[in-house]
Amino acid sequence: MSNLPTIGAEDIHIIPQTIEISLIPKTEFDRIWASKIDLFEQLNLIADMCRANTLAGVKRAGSGHLGSSLSAMDIVVWLYYHVMNTVQIGLTDPDRDIYFSSKGHDVPGLYAVLFSLGIIPTDKFLKLRRLGGLDGHPDVGIPGIEANSGSLGMGISKGKGMAWAKRLKGLPSRVFVLTGDGEWQEGQNYEALQTAAHQHIGNLTVIVDNNKVQSDKLVSEIINIGDLEAKFAAFGWQVARCDGHDFAALAQVFEDFANIHDRPKILIADTIKGRGVSFMEHPFALANNGGLYPWHAGAPDDEAFTAAYREVLLRINERLQEAGLEPVTLESVSPEPKTTSTVSDEYVTKAYGEALVEIGAKRKDLVVLDADLAIDCKIREFEAAYPARFVENGIAEQDMVSMAAGIASQGLLPVVNSFASFLAARANEQIYNATTEKRKIIYGCNFAGLIPAGPGRSHQSIRDISLFGALPNMVIVQPGNATETRLMVDYAINQTSESVMIRLAIGPSPRLIALPIDYQCQVGRGAILRDGADAVLFAYGPVMLHEALLSSDILAIRGIRLKVVNMAWLNRVDDEWLMVTVAECPAIYVLDDHAPIGGLGDFLLNALVRLNLLERKSFHKFAIEGLPACGTPAQALDYHRLSGNLLAEDIAKRELPHETAPF
Amino acid sequence: MSNLPTIGAEDIHIIPQTIEISLIPKTEFDRIWASKIDLFEQLNLIADMCRANTLAGVKRAGSGHLGSSLSAMDIVVWLYYHVMNTVQIGLTDPDRDIYFSSKGHDVPGLYAVLFSLGIIPTDKFLKLRRLGGLDGHPDVGIPGIEANSGSLGMGISKGKGMAWAKRLKGLPSRVFVLTGDGEWQEGQNYEALQTAAHQHIGNLTVIVDNNKVQSDKLVSEIINIGDLEAKFAAFGWQVARCDGHDFAALAQVFEDFANIHDRPKILIADTIKGRGVSFMEHPFALANNGGLYPWHAGAPDDEAFTAAYREVLLRINERLQEAGLEPVTLESVSPEPKTTSTVSDEYVTKAYGEALVEIGAKRKDLVVLDADLAIDCKIREFEAAYPARFVENGIAEQDMVSMAAGIASQGLLPVVNSFASFLAARANEQIYNATTEKRKIIYGCNFAGLIPAGPGRSHQSIRDISLFGALPNMVIVQPGNATETRLMVDYAINQTSESVMIRLAIGPSPRLIALPIDYQCQVGRGAILRDGADAVLFAYGPVMLHEALLSSDILAIRGIRLKVVNMAWLNRVDDEWLMVTVAECPAIYVLDDHAPIGGLGDFLLNALVRLNLLERKSFHKFAIEGLPACGTPAQALDYHRLSGNLLAEDIAKRELPHETAPF
Repeated sequence: MSNLPTIGAEDIHIIPQTIEISLIPKTEFDRIWASKIDLFEQLNLIADMCRANTLAGVKRAGSGHLGSSLSAMDIVVWLYYHVMNTVQIGLTDPDRDIYFSSKGHDVPGLYAVLFSLGIIPTDKFLKLRRLGGLDGHPDVGIPGIEANSGSLGMGISKGKGMAWAKRLKGLPSRVFVLTGDGEWQEGQNYEALQTAAHQHIGNLTVIVDNNKVQSDKLVSEIINIGDLEAKFAAFGWQVARCDGHDFAALAQVFEDFANIHDRPKILIADTIKGRGVSFMEHPFALANNGGLYPWHAGAPDDEAFTAAYREVLLRINERLQEAGLEPVTLESVSPEPKTTSTVSDEYVTKAYGEALVEIGAKRKDLVVLDADLAIDCKIREFEAAYPARFVENGIAEQDMVSMAAGIASQGLLPVVNSFASFLAARANEQIYNATTEKRKIIYGCNFAGLIPAGPGRSHQSIRDISLFGALPNMVIVQPGNATETRLMVDYAINQTSESVMIRLAIGPSPRLIALPIDYQCQVGRGAILRDGADAVLFAYGPVMLHEALLSSDILAIRGIRLKVVNMAWLNRVDDEWLMVTVAECPAIYVLDDHAPIGGLGDFLLNALVRLNLLERKSFHKFAIEGLPACGTPAQALDYHRLSGNLLAEDIAKRELPHETAPF
Repeated sequence: MSNLPTIGAEDIHIIPQTIEISLIPKTEFDRIWASKIDLFEQLNLIADMCRANTLAGVKRAGSGHLGSSLSAMDIVVWLYYHVMNTVQIGLTDPDRDIYFSSKGHDVPGLYAVLFSLGIIPTDKFLKLRRLGGLDGHPDVGIPGIEANSGSLGMGISKGKGMAWAKRLKGLPSRVFVLTGDGEWQEGQNYEALQTAAHQHIGNLTVIVDNNKVQSDKLVSEIINIGDLEAKFAAFGWQVARCDGHDFAALAQVFEDFANIHDRPKILIADTIKGRGVSFMEHPFALANNGGLYPWHAGAPDDEAFTAAYREVLLRINERLQEAGLEPVTLESVSPEPKTTSTVSDEYVTKAYGEALVEIGAKRKDLVVLDADLAIDCKIREFEAAYPARFVENGIAEQDMVSMAAGIASQGLLPVVNSFASFLAARANEQIYNATTEKRKIIYGCNFAGLIPAGPGRSHQSIRDISLFGALPNMVIVQPGNATETRLMVDYAINQTSESVMIRLAIGPSPRLIALPIDYQCQVGRGAILRDGADAVLFAYGPVMLHEALLSSDILAIRGIRLKVVNMAWLNRVDDEWLMVTVAECPAIYVLDDHAPIGGLGDFLLNALVRLNLLERKSFHKFAIEGLPACGTPAQALDYHRLSGNLLAEDIAKRELPHETAPF
């Protein structure tokens, strides 16, 4: 395994399934559970069988989080198979015990456990990160899932609410919340520690999956969370610590905890990230990959998957043989139908990272801050080039933004980075506060928009424009390709005194968006990508521009000439340019990679009305209605009727209302 | 002082100045500082002289935070007069030491210190909470103010950024941040503790003004922050503790700290809230006011002011006499010109609190949560009536919202409460997360809008509609009077399955807004308060409705008949009602108590365009452009041209563009 695949910290690719995949069916779990062997040996077997199914599920999905699914597995199996009443009394009984994971990305492992218990059926288990299947992060719409997570640090608070409600209702059942260890960089955890202790939430138990590694580096390297036992004790919790892979040790801790009712309890479970697959276990994987952990997210390639699956199966069968039981029976899984999403090799994030490095050579005042997503946000290159001007701040977006405001107050120019959904929402008040100080800060909002849709609602950022929109002196842009990204980064750093929010698609662009040869970065002026006089469609970002161009191609066949405009300026417009751009088009459309409220559509609508340009013209927004769908890009775009095909269909219906022929 | 005035936790009234007020001029501070007496005695004198001026400033302003201005005073004086180089090398030198308060509401005391040092001139010092004067919470536009605060928990992060920048730039100067004690309920503090330790920010010193009391109750009663020394040590900080009113003790701690460079330092300064005025000191004040502290915010009445001022002056002069110095000379201050803001005795918040109590009798599933603003949000009555269904969560908005989501998941109906600016922004991602779980939660967003404008930008909430706007299944309303508030609370609890954000003005209504006799709460339908066919103005909330009605009255004199509509539904509209309402009016105006982006104006504009109702009509939004101004209601409304007078003027200009006569 010397040639490990390079996998990003967040799984933004889908690697298509190319080899055969098998599952261990529920009946096999029933067989082991019904056998007369020792409980801990049963649980060891079941955990490993769930590990095998987790590997299969993630491989089939083409993406997902393996490392912490494997580290948390023994704890989850212990809770569901031995501690909780949930399976016995059923998922709708108000007096059921509740388990959920606050970090949430370990959910492929939880799905495997729920599958083993018959709570998630086979067909659903095989649809990880697919529409109508299992979301990439937990969603309560899925059987057995008790809380939505994926954005970090909310779990203890939520578990506290559940436990408080149980107490109010006089129900004796309990709540168990799993957290990560890196997750303890989020401040909300400490709010919850404090309030739960004060409120004497004795029916709440928190387990820290202390696997030592976050996205790609050791927690102690990113932001050390220090002596957890001392911390938790100082917050008034009952603290225990044990090996999180040792069922006997877990049994002892839970027995001790059962006698404590006057305060909340927390177990620091020392675990190994990637537990159960030798080359995914973090001590080995870090040593063999230059100190970076490659199995946090993303599916293994065929070679790695085959080796991992073989190793786990071998161990299961050896144990079964030792216990005098038959080897495990596998069920082969039919391959997934092919999907047709186009993908190029262009990344706007890559251009973003490169531009920061390039400009950083001249601008010695440029400082880049990270919230443990440096690989995804492509800022590790800046870190390598200018280590003194790079701040790793861990998973603490609020602290990062306020720190940036402090840095800006001293005459430096900070660029803060995270995923759009975390940065725009979690740190919103801190961003406002910096704005009231008139500090110039650049906000790199990665992973903006509907796509990739596999990770689910916690990660899909469809409100960020609205969250930045009402801030004065804040320019919001989203570049459509790498060239435009470089221009926009230069604009943000060198050409404006205002703060700039740069919205970036994080996945590979579906195609290279070709800009006009003479394209320049001019505030409030978009670029016409395809001309047409029947209607104009404003769009932005590589994902939606691709769909817009596709719809224009399709409509051209129907004789509808749809002008497509790349409007990278989401809250600035040049009046004259707008006038000319919409002049000949009787219909104006906006394609928002955003909720229908507060995006480009609303901004342009205001400008059009202000300039009196809507007279005898129609206006319509296409946007992401409701909650964003989880699935492949094609599935999510179709679901929201924003794929090129469906856009064309809906525009044709509006342009040719009397034609009844099927599209 | 047995008959203490009832002052709310946040100072939402302005009590007009009715008695004479004096200041101790800067020259008197110079005299003491130049005298040859003992340093600590000098500082004791200066601190008490600043206390006297703080009392005068707050009394003149008619509002402000006395309790923590007085508890922090000795620390602030110690830093500025003895520790920091700031005054010597000047406020623009990049190598100056920096002090700021993270809690910020102690700023009247800081202003007094800056005044004593000649940094804030007399005329500005006398304009506390007035336009062009001194903001109610710190703003960097004011000389000597280094950071904006007032929303809690951001200070250590920001100070860390300043200190980090100093280190990068090779500057030896230092950063000092003061926090409250209740403020340690905010999680961001713990993020900052952790990152600052990891980043070895050795030039940062934090001082906790450990005065034991928050808005109105003991910290240990609201949410106990426990053993601070153990906590801070567990986070890797150098910890010290001393009497925060003892200059010799402070000297020892700062001497010890000066030798530590490899890690950040924190002093727990044990202080007394209200220090220096016997009846404002918290042990006495709590004992004499049934366990509630009445001096956190708000100006003292004449009797209390006179007693307090006399006590402090007496002590100063006794000390001067002991030191062989002349008594202090006072400068009388001319009274402030009268302002003409109208105020009624109606509070929508009061109706809100009463409605919760009334409905809570029937709805046993109703749970009310508070983030240490129970008095202001008028939910103490609910706490008294149903203590088991009231959750005090301290200053931890994120934890409160996630806890509410957990409570909702168990079939109960939580109502969370805070000020709009804190709840909508700080807990934004938690609110989104709860929305993705489809939990029904009611968000009581108090202190919404421009007015009161005295507390400044941290408290004025002009983005909250936009922050809630892109959430699906979220109804946003703002009632215009007490009757409508009761109807809306009933709607939110009993008549909808959606979540509801109730936006509430927190001050007294300028007048009682009279609703039509047959007014009913019907989703998306407003109420016509004044009829007119020339133009229609949509507004909401008692503050803006008052101005809208005023403008209609004024315009009537000019022959312009302005229809005024109370539109309490900020993101729902009944199409048919809207059609009828705007039918005869060629001009449509919206008055947004909000930024121009993402408020009612944008929502109605979308509806008008969708319904094709803008044909041959004009549309214009009046809204709060830029950052909200601090000042009296009249000052802030005038500044933003949203007062009835200026609205009328601007509407007349649009309606009668050819009339040139002065308005």
